[in-house]
Formats: sequence, C-alpha cells, structure tokens
Amino acid sequence: RGELRCICIMAVLARSVLVTGSNRGIGLELVRQLAASPWPPHHIFATCRHPEGPRGKVSVDTVNVPSIQGAVRAVDSHLKDQGLNLLINNAGVSSHATLHSLDSQEMLSVFATNVVGTLQEFLPLLEKAAKGAGKEGLSCSRAAVINVSTKLGSIGLCLGVLQAPMYPYRASKAAQNMVTRCLAVELQEKGILCAAIHPGWVKTDMGTEEAPLMVEHSVRGILTVLASLSQDTSGTFLDWEGNSLPW
Amino acid sequence: RGELRCICIMAVLARSVLVTGSNRGIGLELVRQLAASPWPPHHIFATCRHPEGPRGKVSVDTVNVPSIQGAVRAVDSHLKDQGLNLLINNAGVSSHATLHSLDSQEMLSVFATNVVGTLQEFLPLLEKAAKGAGKEGLSCSRAAVINVSTKLGSIGLCLGVLQAPMYPYRASKAAQNMVTRCLAVELQEKGILCAAIHPGWVKTDMGTEEAPLMVEHSVRGILTVLASLSQDTSGTFLDWEGNSLPW
Ligand SMILES: NC(=O)c1ccc[n+]([C@@H]2O[C@H](COP(=O)([O-])OP(=O)(O)OC[C@H]3O[C@@H](n4cnc5c(N)ncnc54)[C@H](OP(=O)(O)O)[C@@H]3O)[C@@H](O)[C@H]2O)c1
Ligand SMILES: NC(=O)c1ccc[n+]([C@@H]2O[C@H](COP(=O)([O-])OP(=O)(O)OC[C@H]3O[C@@H](n4cnc5c(N)ncnc54)[C@H](OP(=O)(O)O)[C@@H]3O)[C@@H](O)[C@H]2O)c1
Repeated sequence: RGELRCICIMAVLARSVLVTGSNRGIGLELVRQLAASPWPPHHIFATCRHPEGPRGKVSVDTVNVPSIQGAVRAVDSHLKDQGLNLLINNAGVSSHATLHSLDSQEMLSVFATNVVGTLQEFLPLLEKAAKGAGKEGLSCSRAAVINVSTKLGSIGLCLGVLQAPMYPYRASKAAQNMVTRCLAVELQEKGILCAAIHPGWVKTDMGTEEAPLMVEHSVRGILTVLASLSQDTSGTFLDWEGNSLPW
Repeated sequence: RGELRCICIMAVLARSVLVTGSNRGIGLELVRQLAASPWPPHHIFATCRHPEGPRGKVSVDTVNVPSIQGAVRAVDSHLKDQGLNLLINNAGVSSHATLHSLDSQEMLSVFATNVVGTLQEFLPLLEKAAKGAGKEGLSCSRAAVINVSTKLGSIGLCLGVLQAPMYPYRASKAAQNMVTRCLAVELQEKGILCAAIHPGWVKTDMGTEEAPLMVEHSVRGILTVLASLSQDTSGTFLDWEGNSLPW
C-alpha cells in the first residue's frame, strides 16, 4: 500500500526536474527514485560539478556562474518551449569549523555554495514552465524551486551547538532559508512555488554512518512532501515527513 | 524624568565599550551618547575602517582580519587585565540588489562585512572581562556581544520583499542572527551575553531621510535595552524599544 501511494505521487510530480549535486548522497537518490518511478518525469537533469562521473549529464558547479549559465542553455534547448518545472537545489557543503577554528574564507566559501548557488539563472525556465502549464495555483508539477536545507539551519531551534558548532554551515543555511522565503513571496504571482526541505539526518558522506536515516527513506519522504506542496505551503520549511520547522 | 532614567542606566552600562563603524550613523551616535552620559564608560573604543577621520581612534575594517587583530592588541594594551566588557558589532553594509540584479560577488561581500566581521577575535578580551568582573549572571556590564541586526533579517516576518527585495542584505542578517544565537548558547557558560538588536528604521545614510526615526531616539532606546539585558534575554532578537522579534 505504501508503495502504491508513493507510485501515484511520483506519476504526477513534474514533467521536468533538475537536481544539483546528483553524483552522490541525497541528490543521487533523488534522481534514482525519480527515474525508477513507473511514470518518471520526461526529463531528469542529473547535474553535478564533475560530469565525467558515471551519472552526470549536465555540469553545474554551483559556485561557477558560467557553468550554471551553460547548464541553463543546455536544459533550455532540451526542453524547448516547455520550461523547467522543478529545480531542486540539493548541492551543499558542510563545515565542522568551531567558533575558534573557523576562518572567514571558509565561511564565505560555504556561503557561496549553499546560498548563492543557482538562485537566479534558472528563473526564466521556471517562469516559462509556470506560464505554459495550463495549471492554476502553485505546485511542483507546475513550477517550483526546492531548496534542500537543514534543521541545523533553524535559528529558532538552534540545536546542539555545543556538540556540533558548525557556524558556517548553520549561518549559510539560515541565509538560504531567508532566500527561500523571499523567493516564495516574489515568485508567487509568477506561479512558482518555493520551499525549504530538511531531509532528516541521513547516511551520506555528509551525514556520516552515524545518521539514523537511510537515504532511500529520506528521499521517499522528500518526494512525497514535494508532491503535496501547494499555494498554502509555499514559503514554508518542512522536514522529509512534512512536519513544519521554525525558522 | 525620561532623561534621568536614561542617565542612571548609562552609569552602569559597562566599564569598557567598543563600537564598530562609529564614524557615522548609528555607530557615531552610540559613541556620542555613551561619552555624554554623566558616568561614561572608562574606555570607549570608537572604531572605524578609515581612522584618519575626526573621530576614529582605533582602526577596524571588519573585512580585514589583520586590522581586527591589530585593534584587539591595541584594546588589550589599553585595558590591561580588565578585558573588554561590551562589543557592539554595528558596522554593516546594505545592498539594494533585486533578485535579478544581484550577483554572487556582491552577495559575498555583504556577507563578509555583516556576518563574518569581528566574530572571533575579541572573544579572549570578553572572556577576560567576564572572569574579572566579580559579577554573576549575564549583563552588558559584565561581558556582552551585541550584534546590530535588522527587522529585514527576520525570516519569520519577511517584510516588504516586493518593495525592498534586498536579498543579500536580508540573507546576511539572517545568517548574522544565527551566529548571534549560536554565540549566546556557546558563550553563556563563559559569562558572556549575546543578543541581536534591531535599531528601528533610522535616518542615517543607510536608512535615508525617509526613515521615521531620529538616530538620537533609536540609540537612546538601544542603550536602554542593552542595560536591561540579562541571562533571560541572552540569545534573543529585540528592537530598540525592547520588543521581541521572530527569527
Ligand atoms: N546528510 C544529511 O544528514 C543532511 C542533513 C541535512 C541537510 N542535508 C543537505 O542535503 C544536501 C545534500 O547533502 P548530502 O548528505 O547528499 O551530502 P553529500 O553526500 O556530501 O553530497 C553533497 C553533494 O553536493 C555536491 N556539491 C557540493 N558543492 C558543490 C558545488 N559547488 N557545485 C555542485 N555540486 C556541489 C557534491 O558534489 P561533489 O561530489 O562534486 O563534491 C555532492 O554531490 C545538502 O544541501 C545538505 O546540506 C544533508
Ligand atoms: N539605518 C537603519 O534604518 C537601519 C535599520 C536596521 C539596521 N541597521 C543596521 O545598523 C547598523 C548601522 O547602520 P547605519 O544606519 O548607521 O548605517 P550607515 O550610516 O551606512 O553607517 C554604516 C557604518 O558601518 C561602517 N562599515 C561598513 N563596512 C565596514 C567595514 N568593512 N569595516 C568597518 N566599518 C564598516 C561604515 O563605515 P564607512 O564610513 O567607512 O563606510 C559606517 O560607519 C548596520 O549594521 C545596519 O545594518 C540600520
């Protein structure tokens, strides 16, 4: 039953999806589950910064603007007039710097990847999708930007600072959350949904083996949440189970 | 009566205070009101990045680490064993970039000034003050880091995005708020208070003439709020009137 429900949701998620950082971890599993669904998206752009790897198709280094612009052109020429329905900004880096060990260069490089990323360049393709879809309201199947955030980026929760200071990572994700919320306000009238998703603490290179959650489980949850997003949940911060998190 | 109350508060605010960005705007007025109080701090370090100006004493360019370190040495040699009681991180830059006009370099340079700033270097001086004060609990007269933030950095409020997008500014201040809250958690056991203050919308170069609030009024409010801070309000986000703001 669980499987069946999941399959139905996948069928309608989005016609075209682009995932950044999809050569490993959560990004790779997103692409796998999207591709494995019985009615997969027509176009899945599995992007990564070093596409010579086995799974990369389009190169997107989120700190390299020409690389992003190149990807936009490549994606546009594939999709023609239909635009891109769903952009999942998943690429991210962590930083274990403590208050005493962090330095400003590290802080800025984490910001560059986690906040600046693919903020602007794909918007024209998303707008195209939003206009062309013949759909009302907001949804991932019409046009959406999903930013993969983290509970550690919740200023309100401010979890486990003494055990895991991670100042650059936390600050960058709080900044990314601000951008998510501003985008949601600004893009709403253009028909583009925007939300922040916490994938849980997941067994990946970043999450480490200590993490309680399998990547398959996290991603199944994320895709279910994405399929449920609407006008009412644009601009929110949800975890992989759909629970709302404080900013 | 209002004046009298204010004077009493000023008398006990802090033995030593350092203000960044004090050559104009809110920073300059903070230094003015501190110096003009009948029982002023013994040491006021009015820092700015170009100290050849009429009021600068110590040079602090918040994006220049050697400059910050030089200031720490200068301040330390003035204060000897007593340490620094109150650090007010006021220096900041705005950015009017919209979603379409912003570029990553601008975003990062705003982050560098508004978030990274004087995050670490003054901590040993604050710890020294916290230890030496013979005081219990947290207060600005013992040891405190005050980060001048803004209501526009509240993710929860997300005010006026369509009228004033200011993505880099908002994102940087949300990141700074995260840092404030993490610092409050981490520094509490060392006896150092940490809080974020929104000065109101103030007539300064940044706030413009359109702003409703005179800088004298805002700063009087800020200093009153600072004097009232305690263990209970460390790690909070308050405006110049003492109202709590959502993250
Ligand atoms: N795992 C967790 O527990 C957890 C928890 C909360 C949030 N998250 C978030 O989930 C997202 C994915 O994390 P993960 O656990 O899958 O991490 P991961 O296994 O470390 O993978 C990170 C991915 O991001 C890519 N990446 C990093 N910098 C990039 C750049 N400049 N341009 C393009 N791609 C870049 C990496 O590519 P390379 O292989 O080229 O480095 C890799 O594909 C991140 O945003 C992370 O913050 C993870
Ligand atoms: N005015 C408002 O309505 C308002 C509202 C909310 C929050 N704030 C916050 O209040 C603080 C002060 O703002 P303000 O209105 O007084 O602005 P302002 O009049 O523009 O003054 C900004 C001050 O910051 C200094 N500064 C900028 N970058 C610096 C750097 N890298 N190193 C050292 N100093 C630097 C400037 O020095 P230079 O002269 O050398 O440039 C100047 O002294 C800022 O953090 C701002 O975000 C202001």
